Amino acid sequence: MPRFPPALICGALLLLSLRPACAHAETGAQAWLRYAPLNQEAARQYANLPAVVVLRRDSAVLRSAPAELIRGVRGMLGRTLREEKDLPGENAILLGTFSDLQPVAPGLASRGGIHDDGFLLATRKLHGLDCLIVASATERGVLYGVFALLGKMARNESLSALEETQQPTAPIRWVDQWDNLDGRIERGYAGPSIFFENGSVRADLTRAGEYARLLASIGINGCAINNVNANPRVLEDDFLPQLARVANAFRPWGVRLSIAVDVSSPQVIGGLDTFDPLDARVSEWWAKKFDDIYRLIPDFAGVVVKADSEGRLGPATYGRTPADAANVIARALKPHGGIVFYRAFVYNHQLDWQNPKNDRAKAAYDNFHPLDDKFDDNVIIQIKHGPIDFQVREPVSPLFSGLEKTNEAIELQVTQEYTGQQRHLCFLPPMWKEVLDFDLHAGDGPTPVKDIVSGKTFHRPTGGFVAVVNVGMDKNWLAHPLAMANLYGYGRLAWNPNLDSKQIAEEWTRLTFGNEPLVENTISRMLLESWPIYERYTGPLGAGTLTDILGSHYGPGVESSERNGWGQWHRADHQGVGMDRTAATGTGYVEQYRAPVAKMYESLKTTPDELLLFFHHVPYTYVLHSGKTVIQHIYDSHYDGAEEAANLVKQWQSLEGRVDEERYEETLKRLAYQAGHAIVWRDAVCNWFFRTSGIADQRGRVGHYPDRIEVEAMQLAGYVPFDVIPQETASGGKAIECAPSAQKCAATFRFDRAAGWYELDVEYFDQNNGQSKFRVLLGDQVVDEWVADDLLPATKPGGDASTRRRISGLALRPGDKIRIEGIPEGEERAALDYVEIHTLPQ
Amino acid sequence: MPRFPPALICGALLLLSLRPACAHAETGAQAWLRYAPLNQEAARQYANLPAVVVLRRDSAVLRSAPAELIRGVRGMLGRTLREEKDLPGENAILLGTFSDLQPVAPGLASRGGIHDDGFLLATRKLHGLDCLIVASATERGVLYGVFALLGKMARNESLSALEETQQPTAPIRWVDQWDNLDGRIERGYAGPSIFFENGSVRADLTRAGEYARLLASIGINGCAINNVNANPRVLEDDFLPQLARVANAFRPWGVRLSIAVDVSSPQVIGGLDTFDPLDARVSEWWAKKFDDIYRLIPDFAGVVVKADSEGRLGPATYGRTPADAANVIARALKPHGGIVFYRAFVYNHQLDWQNPKNDRAKAAYDNFHPLDDKFDDNVIIQIKHGPIDFQVREPVSPLFSGLEKTNEAIELQVTQEYTGQQRHLCFLPPMWKEVLDFDLHAGDGPTPVKDIVSGKTFHRPTGGFVAVVNVGMDKNWLAHPLAMANLYGYGRLAWNPNLDSKQIAEEWTRLTFGNEPLVENTISRMLLESWPIYERYTGPLGAGTLTDILGSHYGPGVESSERNGWGQWHRADHQGVGMDRTAATGTGYVEQYRAPVAKMYESLKTTPDELLLFFHHVPYTYVLHSGKTVIQHIYDSHYDGAEEAANLVKQWQSLEGRVDEERYEETLKRLAYQAGHAIVWRDAVCNWFFRTSGIADQRGRVGHYPDRIEVEAMQLAGYVPFDVIPQETASGGKAIECAPSAQKCAATFRFDRAAGWYELDVEYFDQNNGQSKFRVLLGDQVVDEWVADDLLPATKPGGDASTRRRISGLALRPGDKIRIEGIPEGEERAALDYVEIHTLPQ
Repeated sequence: MPRFPPALICGALLLLSLRPACAHAETGAQAWLRYAPLNQEAARQYANLPAVVVLRRDSAVLRSAPAELIRGVRGMLGRTLREEKDLPGENAILLGTFSDLQPVAPGLASRGGIHDDGFLLATRKLHGLDCLIVASATERGVLYGVFALLGKMARNESLSALEETQQPTAPIRWVDQWDNLDGRIERGYAGPSIFFENGSVRADLTRAGEYARLLASIGINGCAINNVNANPRVLEDDFLPQLARVANAFRPWGVRLSIAVDVSSPQVIGGLDTFDPLDARVSEWWAKKFDDIYRLIPDFAGVVVKADSEGRLGPATYGRTPADAANVIARALKPHGGIVFYRAFVYNHQLDWQNPKNDRAKAAYDNFHPLDDKFDDNVIIQIKHGPIDFQVREPVSPLFSGLEKTNEAIELQVTQEYTGQQRHLCFLPPMWKEVLDFDLHAGDGPTPVKDIVSGKTFHRPTGGFVAVVNVGMDKNWLAHPLAMANLYGYGRLAWNPNLDSKQIAEEWTRLTFGNEPLVENTISRMLLESWPIYERYTGPLGAGTLTDILGSHYGPGVESSERNGWGQWHRADHQGVGMDRTAATGTGYVEQYRAPVAKMYESLKTTPDELLLFFHHVPYTYVLHSGKTVIQHIYDSHYDGAEEAANLVKQWQSLEGRVDEERYEETLKRLAYQAGHAIVWRDAVCNWFFRTSGIADQRGRVGHYPDRIEVEAMQLAGYVPFDVIPQETASGGKAIECAPSAQKCAATFRFDRAAGWYELDVEYFDQNNGQSKFRVLLGDQVVDEWVADDLLPATKPGGDASTRRRISGLALRPGDKIRIEGIPEGEERAALDYVEIHTLPQ
Repeated sequence: MPRFPPALICGALLLLSLRPACAHAETGAQAWLRYAPLNQEAARQYANLPAVVVLRRDSAVLRSAPAELIRGVRGMLGRTLREEKDLPGENAILLGTFSDLQPVAPGLASRGGIHDDGFLLATRKLHGLDCLIVASATERGVLYGVFALLGKMARNESLSALEETQQPTAPIRWVDQWDNLDGRIERGYAGPSIFFENGSVRADLTRAGEYARLLASIGINGCAINNVNANPRVLEDDFLPQLARVANAFRPWGVRLSIAVDVSSPQVIGGLDTFDPLDARVSEWWAKKFDDIYRLIPDFAGVVVKADSEGRLGPATYGRTPADAANVIARALKPHGGIVFYRAFVYNHQLDWQNPKNDRAKAAYDNFHPLDDKFDDNVIIQIKHGPIDFQVREPVSPLFSGLEKTNEAIELQVTQEYTGQQRHLCFLPPMWKEVLDFDLHAGDGPTPVKDIVSGKTFHRPTGGFVAVVNVGMDKNWLAHPLAMANLYGYGRLAWNPNLDSKQIAEEWTRLTFGNEPLVENTISRMLLESWPIYERYTGPLGAGTLTDILGSHYGPGVESSERNGWGQWHRADHQGVGMDRTAATGTGYVEQYRAPVAKMYESLKTTPDELLLFFHHVPYTYVLHSGKTVIQHIYDSHYDGAEEAANLVKQWQSLEGRVDEERYEETLKRLAYQAGHAIVWRDAVCNWFFRTSGIADQRGRVGHYPDRIEVEAMQLAGYVPFDVIPQETASGGKAIECAPSAQKCAATFRFDRAAGWYELDVEYFDQNNGQSKFRVLLGDQVVDEWVADDLLPATKPGGDASTRRRISGLALRPGDKIRIEGIPEGEERAALDYVEIHTLPQ
């Protein structure tokens, strides 16, 4: 008889609602908390795990600790632990706060100086019995310890002679969601909100509870659930009980509820004729509002404020400062222990681009540095990691070292707004690590960003980490099966920023896909390579992502940054490229850094290649430290990145049969799409710079596509050519679409190469405002057909919509007629860009 | 670059509607026609497969041949063959009838004397080019050849120097469906009809077409789509165009449509005052009716008739014979080439059980043997393989050797009416092989059943095979993922009854689950063991299945056969058991066999053990050839069978990760259920015979269940004990159910064994007229909960409903209180039978 029959009899498990579903295929809904049955060998090392779990005192949060332990052990070992209220006459697992455990296991807390949410995992002999202890100063710390213990088991790590303490680096470990009350999520790419629909909180908050559980498992203790572009309605009296329902769903997991608020609320919904933060009626209004909130939500955490930014109202309306606005709210929260996150993302988005001294990167420092001693102690300034806006590569924001008397939190982005929107693989912890480890030279010793935001450097009472996550109703939370590695990585770094990215990638892979070495090595390597790959085929050298910044922030749009007030200029012209931010000749932005940092960036010689164009304007022929010219680096990196993206597909294919089919297929589909879209990016950026610079690719690739046939050169029926705008987002600047009157269109060409086996790539435009149908015929034989039904962020042909359809294994003969038929639907006119035909090895 | 990128890029494949879906998990919908991508090594041997397929002449059936070949090759190799109308200037695959191919490849037909649906697979040099030829005398034979070719590739068999002919053993290779026009299927266990709903043919006949494709792939060329208990409505004028739609769906696959008809139709729907087959108006009516049908369905195959049987009207109404009834219809069909299947399943179901000479087994022979020279040449007598009714073990029907001047077909049953209804694994080809190979000594040399039904023995113009299949709308066709092996096996044996069961099991496994040796060996072994296992725990020694023959034909019901007119008696009393069918002292049934067979069965000494109780009444102490007494054999075989059923679960578990998750989980669930239900069977049969015989089990098992706790002995709240009928279908004859007024009930007991790890089996009754909820608590801790929501064929507690819930990995301590709570719903009163507690090895 097998060791753990129930865990092995998945058929039976399927029926057990108490157990984690041993699903037909994994949807990803369980993320890294799968508790999949361990194999016999791995299970054997836990044979002596006590059969009893003891929780001596109960509470909403503490209750989750034994429940989670029982759930996890049942999933992994097929055993149901017995839950007891006191020490039994046998070995046991003891859970509790230090004070709960003091009577039975005295002196635990003194070891290791554990405080706040830190925890202890230890084996102890108590009354002659072997006990495994999970203890913390806080209730949620006990829960964190249980998750840590279960994680060790899931990764098959030893539990014998356990003596481990973990202490989070900072008290603030939060996530923000940019969910609108109508259920849409700003910059969310994984379905509608798990919190709101149709202007109200959802009736079913199951997913909110599951999200809180995931957050707790990585030590996150707060969550702001609505868009920072806040709807004042969240503070209306009848909405507060709805918020309380979300808080109730969060509470068992020690996650405290927060909301984003609009500073004009006292006027917009409060009936006052002002929202001037210095007006006594306004401060009274806020005080009463929070009294009401805390009556319903005693553990309410506080609020997030975005003001005077991107069209939001703010204290500037009354000539007041951000400190005035933050403090009036902070003082209302203070009696209840609440805090205010005030976002430093305040800038003028109508900058005059013709003034070479203007620089959006300077805004946060300019606005907040002068206010350094003006913020109350329960205000935290929430600072994006870079001075612009979550670009694929930015320097660290100088504001971190510009506030010594103010609490800070770093704002990171798990939702991949500028990094592929979860359609491209982009594992961000390596980027975050570079930011967190960056020494701003703000004191005598090293002052890395991680020490500043955690409050250590400037001895601040609080501070820490915030990430914009934007999970949605998609079963796997973030749409791409590998994207949850970013949420996991964020949580792990917020807990301990000294972890390295490789360890995080490996931990996540083992928990999410199992412990097989090939799986662990392949997926973690793919994750670790993915950010540099994405950077290469989008926008290297610190130029930003070169995306369409005025629209979707997704596909290429090189010139969208230029000649407008948004200030994301890279100032490329026919001679050179880059923003001169030096003190000597540029905007002077570098002066916001402390001297050693400023000195490094001021000089072309000491500026690292990867940030060159962020700090300097150089000719295309400028030679990098690498020995390449800037223009050749742009070409090479884009070709390299696209090739590496194609290689990700092959790496993933080596795992077929080693990961469950559902996640395997979904990931493969996204990686194959990414490989195609990387070519769209490559061609758009390379061609734009070739056209602008006039300098040819030394390797002859840019502008030359020997396998490519432009559709506008084919024999067309119903199809008409048109100019794509911007031109670099279609091959040759042109595409074809069905004429307004056409029901069905066709583009035909003659194959004139040698007989052989080929693959045919059809580049078409898949918009979200129609579902065109396509067929490909070889002579009279239909060899492929598909529907363009993806929901890309595109309503017209261009870089956002451009999609590759690969038809492989075609036996082509000279003289063959190949016809592509399109049937348009709605505003999607079955547009096509080009065809490529590649030889397959025999 | 991999050899066949598209086949490997499943993500891309998912989008290709033309390709077989590379699904997230396999539903079983593709059955054995999966065309799963071959691994590189396997694919390599087909590298030289021609790129062109040639079909020189088109037709509805021929069209399917290249289409299927293209589909299969694309799935397995990721290549799209080019379809041409004539020989190209390169290697090619030629498909066609011999006459089609004569101009380009003369003399193919003369080789091997291929005729009818037989086919040739051969490589030939034509005009200096290497061609692979698939040829047949018939159009459907070409299609069969293509399926054979694709099957070879799917099983990774060599195609080099191919020279193979296959010739079916008989022209009749049919399936029947017992579908009612309302969509229900009599003795169907896999969802509603794929043909009918709400009294009409379905609007969407996609599944009917897919079914025909599956049938064609195993050489089946006819299908009767409605219940033999026929609704006369199928012949109404407005229904005929609906039938034509089904025929259209079948036609591309060479499957001819047939229907079951009611012989009273001329009266019931024809407006005549009689259906007397000798009345001229009746014969005219039939003639006109078939003229109408053939106008709509030119390839209509004929009809199936069940008459004077189980309450159906028939020629006996007018004192006419089955020959009169068959011939009047046959003559109406004759001008169109149609045939009549007249079922020999005619018997009196109101037999006097008190007359020891009465014997239902004699009915078919008694009714049809005297009519041997009376049937027209286009009538086929359809004879169930055994004299009773698809029992788990019967002798061969003596009627096969009782008709020398009449066409015959053997009727088999793929739908597992008496063999576990696809909830139990029961691979039937080994049983069918025993029947087909059985020598009836009807001539000078060997005359096995297979030679008689194919027409060889008595030189009949036609004959062959019919099976009742009853696929349904369940995605995997027959509900149990392994049950389709029976349809496959049936088709293979109807094509070539000389194949052995092991080869069939291996072929099917490779096609259905892939070519990994462990998978092939394990599944084929499980299949081959499954019929004997099922026989052991249900009804060995030829006693039949001992099921409830008056109801579901599913669970145990030992006495249901006795003392009623249905004639399935085994005549068990306190002294002995078995039907005496000898000539000397019994019913004389054995005299229906030819002398050598009759002699064997007449003697106790020469009757094989496995059929002992079919032919003889013996005392329980009678000693078998095996050396065991009959009663001990009954005990031992039932315990062995139940243990072997449990072992099937373990065998299947060895395949985890080696077959796709969806089919793995679904199969595991059914096997786990079967293992539990085998114990219900074991206990019911053993206890019934123990009670009746008074003879104890030598091994002390029957009646002693040391690990078992009867629920009626527990402390009950809301639950009340009651007597289960028949008593052997519940442990101790008693169970408990919630009192009519109770909303929630509980049964509590104290655990008093040593501390340790245990598994707890809760035996409960899952009816189809309610969905009760159950919870199991250990002290205050909920350790399991489930809903009794299966749709077993049961409306009351008993052997059909009895279901095991296994809760494993429980740490139990002496003194523990274990409580089972039930919440009844509807007529299902949350009934419970017993609990068993088993030690788990530490």
